[in-house]
Amino acid sequence: MVGLEEVAKLARVSPATASRALTRPELVAEATRARVARAAEALGYRPNVLARSLRQRGSRTLGLVVTDILNPFHATLAKGVQDVADAQGYTVLMFNTDEESDKERRAFETLRGHLPRGLIVVPTPAAHVNLDLLPDLPVIELDRTSGRAGAHTVMVDNEAGAYRAVSHLAALGHRRIGMVVGQQDISTAVERHAGYVRALADAGLPYRPDLVRPGHHREADGRAAAHTLLTLPPGERPTALFVGNNEMTVGAVLAARDLGLNLPHDLSLVGFDDSRWAQTMTPAITVVAQPAYDLGTLACRTLLDLLEGREVPELVRLSTTFTQRDSTAPVPAHHSPEAVAVPGP
Amino acid sequence: MVGLEEVAKLARVSPATASRALTRPELVAEATRARVARAAEALGYRPNVLARSLRQRGSRTLGLVVTDILNPFHATLAKGVQDVADAQGYTVLMFNTDEESDKERRAFETLRGHLPRGLIVVPTPAAHVNLDLLPDLPVIELDRTSGRAGAHTVMVDNEAGAYRAVSHLAALGHRRIGMVVGQQDISTAVERHAGYVRALADAGLPYRPDLVRPGHHREADGRAAAHTLLTLPPGERPTALFVGNNEMTVGAVLAARDLGLNLPHDLSLVGFDDSRWAQTMTPAITVVAQPAYDLGTLACRTLLDLLEGREVPELVRLSTTFTQRDSTAPVPAHHSPEAVAVPGP
Repeated sequence: MVGLEEVAKLARVSPATASRALTRPELVAEATRARVARAAEALGYRPNVLARSLRQRGSRTLGLVVTDILNPFHATLAKGVQDVADAQGYTVLMFNTDEESDKERRAFETLRGHLPRGLIVVPTPAAHVNLDLLPDLPVIELDRTSGRAGAHTVMVDNEAGAYRAVSHLAALGHRRIGMVVGQQDISTAVERHAGYVRALADAGLPYRPDLVRPGHHREADGRAAAHTLLTLPPGERPTALFVGNNEMTVGAVLAARDLGLNLPHDLSLVGFDDSRWAQTMTPAITVVAQPAYDLGTLACRTLLDLLEGREVPELVRLSTTFTQRDSTAPVPAHHSPEAVAVPGP
Repeated sequence: MVGLEEVAKLARVSPATASRALTRPELVAEATRARVARAAEALGYRPNVLARSLRQRGSRTLGLVVTDILNPFHATLAKGVQDVADAQGYTVLMFNTDEESDKERRAFETLRGHLPRGLIVVPTPAAHVNLDLLPDLPVIELDRTSGRAGAHTVMVDNEAGAYRAVSHLAALGHRRIGMVVGQQDISTAVERHAGYVRALADAGLPYRPDLVRPGHHREADGRAAAHTLLTLPPGERPTALFVGNNEMTVGAVLAARDLGLNLPHDLSLVGFDDSRWAQTMTPAITVVAQPAYDLGTLACRTLLDLLEGREVPELVRLSTTFTQRDSTAPVPAHHSPEAVAVPGP
């Protein structure tokens, strides 16, 4: 393998100058830089990134840790991060934790060995502890906040997005609006639930705990939670559902189908986060859309700004977009409280 | 930071023995190994992966290069690879090339600097050249083959899958079966087209070049190609379409919707590769399903076998599964050649 010394010799500069010309070209005169570059090219010199990382105690490497790579929302976050990193000459080491605290810890341990310059993480509920493994690393929390002091976070306004969705259902005349909520130790789930609570209150509707069921951000949980809500007795069953993320939404749609419920005639449904199946199924699903790609690019830009010593806000919140499609409709007359003349026992 | 020397001292062994106990435990006596592990634990010793990689001229790092992380097929491949690597203590450095030769080349260059032990790659058409950048690295080609001599490949039987789909359409009485094909410099696209050709021949149907349109594996291309086919004059228009991958299939469905064509009444459609939207849309789409997760796990197991010096087959082909849903039906009477009594000019 060709060494830096050979490049320096051919370019008639010192090894230190050759190194600077290749790694910090802004510090080297144009003519020298060009001579070194030509020499490196001619000799087929390839820098050893690991050796350089070790010397500099740092690298052009960033860590990215998401919680569910099979969820298109996370794949899109990752694409956004990678596109920005790529354009700036950074390599992204990507990990997937499957929402498991243990996998997150191991991802952080592995990352530490690769001396990344910074980390972008969708934190699991254990991240506030696990992040102690990387005490000096600049970190951007993406999509969620771990609650750590001094953290930098890029996320959407979940509360406002949920409020908009539930207000829409209330305005359509729904009075029994159920919610499938995510894990309450994850900030997005807490905020979306808060938006649901506020929208009910502003619409003069009571908060009914029996109409709120937990899921764990996956399809199967959403399906089970929705099934429970949709098999309540006729006068109790919600006429509308707000579902806290995309995977649980597809589960809720399948639960409604299992029960022979027709959307939106028998049930109105709004999901949080858009997806291709939400757009293509019949009826197309009304959603609170998130700018997933922008979240990813913004998180990476924020991290790079941080690395370059620029002033960076502690919290960046992007807006969601309420996208009305065909899965929501006014509550049908036979579902209104007046029409439900359930005889007493 | 605690060094290996301190661990060795506490465990009362030489640094070399401590190192071996931590990195090649099979070479060290059980009691010594346990003593070193306890010492490392007590001191909070963390090995520096980069330094170790450099010493060993290798690491517990694998490269993974996919061509479209936003395609759920590729996200699922990646999940399979990562799950196996994770279980074996390997870290995966993942790259996304967007089907671009240039991004693939840069991914390989970056990988080289990180001294991976091996590479799993979904090759772009330029991979047979780009892979020259990694001359001594064990490589598994995944999903496609670059055509390089001596390559190890894990893929599905694309030809048989396509043959099955098109035979199904022919058996339903369709005589004008169109195809949206992928780029013909990608092996999967070539093989799926070959299956289409063979199925037509076996059904006694002519191959008509005007019924075959190219797409580039993305939704927009599939939509445009299907639009062209579906706007042919009534007696020329295909009554059935076979579409060469999942992204182009959603495009073809949208093109049919744009034109007010009802599936399966006006058009039968089969896609290659399954997806959530194919399952949830109405009608649900008949597909040739691929075992994407298994492809990923198998590729990683094959690479690890190769690294451990085991005998590995050059080519592993998994079967596809024909999954009939509601987007295919017998050709309606008014579409049959007999019924199309188009008056001459």
